[in-house]
Amino acid sequence: MPQDLPLEDVVIIGSGPAGWTAAIYAARAGLRPLVYPGRAAGKDLMPGGQLMLTTDVENYPGYPEGKTGPEMMTDFFKQAMRFDTRVVTDSGVKNGEELDLNMGLFNVFQNVASVDLSKRPFHVKGDGGHEALAKAVIIATGAKANWLGLDNEMRLAQSGGGVSACAVCDGALPMFRDQPLGVVGAGDTAVEEATYLAKFASKVTMFVRRDAMRASKIMQKRALDHPKIEVLWNTSVTDVLGDEKITGVKLINNQTQDESEMELHGLFMAIGHTPITGFLNGQLKADDAGYLVLKDPYRSTTEVEGCFLAGDVADHVYRQAVTAAGMGCKAAIDAERWLAEQE
Amino acid sequence: MPQDLPLEDVVIIGSGPAGWTAAIYAARAGLRPLVYPGRAAGKDLMPGGQLMLTTDVENYPGYPEGKTGPEMMTDFFKQAMRFDTRVVTDSGVKNGEELDLNMGLFNVFQNVASVDLSKRPFHVKGDGGHEALAKAVIIATGAKANWLGLDNEMRLAQSGGGVSACAVCDGALPMFRDQPLGVVGAGDTAVEEATYLAKFASKVTMFVRRDAMRASKIMQKRALDHPKIEVLWNTSVTDVLGDEKITGVKLINNQTQDESEMELHGLFMAIGHTPITGFLNGQLKADDAGYLVLKDPYRSTTEVEGCFLAGDVADHVYRQAVTAAGMGCKAAIDAERWLAEQE
Repeated sequence: MPQDLPLEDVVIIGSGPAGWTAAIYAARAGLRPLVYPGRAAGKDLMPGGQLMLTTDVENYPGYPEGKTGPEMMTDFFKQAMRFDTRVVTDSGVKNGEELDLNMGLFNVFQNVASVDLSKRPFHVKGDGGHEALAKAVIIATGAKANWLGLDNEMRLAQSGGGVSACAVCDGALPMFRDQPLGVVGAGDTAVEEATYLAKFASKVTMFVRRDAMRASKIMQKRALDHPKIEVLWNTSVTDVLGDEKITGVKLINNQTQDESEMELHGLFMAIGHTPITGFLNGQLKADDAGYLVLKDPYRSTTEVEGCFLAGDVADHVYRQAVTAAGMGCKAAIDAERWLAEQE
Repeated sequence: MPQDLPLEDVVIIGSGPAGWTAAIYAARAGLRPLVYPGRAAGKDLMPGGQLMLTTDVENYPGYPEGKTGPEMMTDFFKQAMRFDTRVVTDSGVKNGEELDLNMGLFNVFQNVASVDLSKRPFHVKGDGGHEALAKAVIIATGAKANWLGLDNEMRLAQSGGGVSACAVCDGALPMFRDQPLGVVGAGDTAVEEATYLAKFASKVTMFVRRDAMRASKIMQKRALDHPKIEVLWNTSVTDVLGDEKITGVKLINNQTQDESEMELHGLFMAIGHTPITGFLNGQLKADDAGYLVLKDPYRSTTEVEGCFLAGDVADHVYRQAVTAAGMGCKAAIDAERWLAEQE
């Protein structure tokens, strides 16, 4: 292990609600946390996380008028940097006085390349050459929503044009009221999201690729029995239509190869999430879906002492900004107390 | 059971960060939640909860400039009322259009008097005569910090004069930097708070009433070995000195009855919290300290189907605004999914 690397109290990996909240708490506890926020869009770990793809956030408590996702994550970033948080950029480690905070998450940050959890202090490597030793690590890398990968889908998702990967987050927006909406997916989550959307929509169509659903029997029955939900079997979405707002989708029947179009004013992806854990190389326990597993589900601890989890990377159930922030707070408090025990 | 009472989808009891966050999520899910916010100061369940006694909140993520506790809870209240939340007032049930939202938490709300969890729908009674039947109930009544009960203590706590019941919340404020601080208490939490404060303080004095601590051996050792922490045994605080800011405390030695004064520029209570559960009459499982017990510690469920917990009433570990808000979100999502299953 390189002896001449800086020894950090706490390294935080990720910069969504969980990462910045962990930084706020760790910084206020005098731990001078070091954050690897991730690389700009396109890379796995994106500064600001999934909220950077969200336009209107109405359900994060504390914003009675709502905020956009990027505005909200800029608030979190500034608050963390106001205390003694430091971030790893491509031009070295910077604190709040050395960075242009108004650039927010457009600063050029480093992603994490690897973490060696086999011995303490942990050895952390950035993808831009920065390395550190860390007494404690908080992993808050999140989970990326899975998308179909269509150009128009991503364009309309990023511009708030009615394409989303989170019905609970976005479904209650006025633009979706009494409109025909679509859900892509066939698991329990897809049925949950369709049921949620059916409260607001004039109709919800579920697009199921095969002739069967992965969802549990009881959830399938819920979808099939619901007066406002229609299930289209053997059907894939091949394109999303609309300039500024979605107006419809192109469909293909996977059995007959028949193509068609359908009018829709909202489309919700429910084809799963991919927790961002590649840099760990399997060093932490994960469940079948790839989510990291908490040692004690009420805390933030893992099987590796000194390594804590926060946010969507360890949460396949709720995945909300405020739940992730709550977990970030827990992780920082747990890390602070664990470090105090070590001394 | 009275058949002519209104049947509510979700009743939320309590109006701190957990209660209003549950309301925001439940309202956006179309459940039109009904909230019993509690009675104005002096009663057990206080509208806005413990944050109404807090001046500067610097660690709730999303407020880069900080906010006062009452301002923050007014934001939460307005956000919940902006969606379809209803509150129980002394002049009946009101929604966001029927209330003066600028009065915020100074509206005259009802407290809960009792909840019958023995059969569904649950029968909820307010202390001002309102009654309802509820398919689901979210209990977010919080936990009151214990205080010594001295007039000057409460006066300086409410005015931000340097008396606090939460070191993690307030200890990092500039007013406490390099100052002599005191901690009242003898449990693990008291040692945790003293250790936390010792990062900032010039010195921390712990006031322990008897000649022994309740804290575990390892925690006692941490306090006794810490170069900046001094433990005063057999010592009680009998008064808090200072007009606008605390300047010191009056002490009595409980063995010799000797009285003395000590200069202090901050005083932190760590003599426990009392979860607000009296209205339940023991219908839910509680731990030795009185905190309600979650069935699954990652979720918000209880042994009583349809009854969910959120916030400090079920959290003796973290007790932060953002962790309580996260739990409120979980409870609303769990309640929404459970209600969907029932239909």
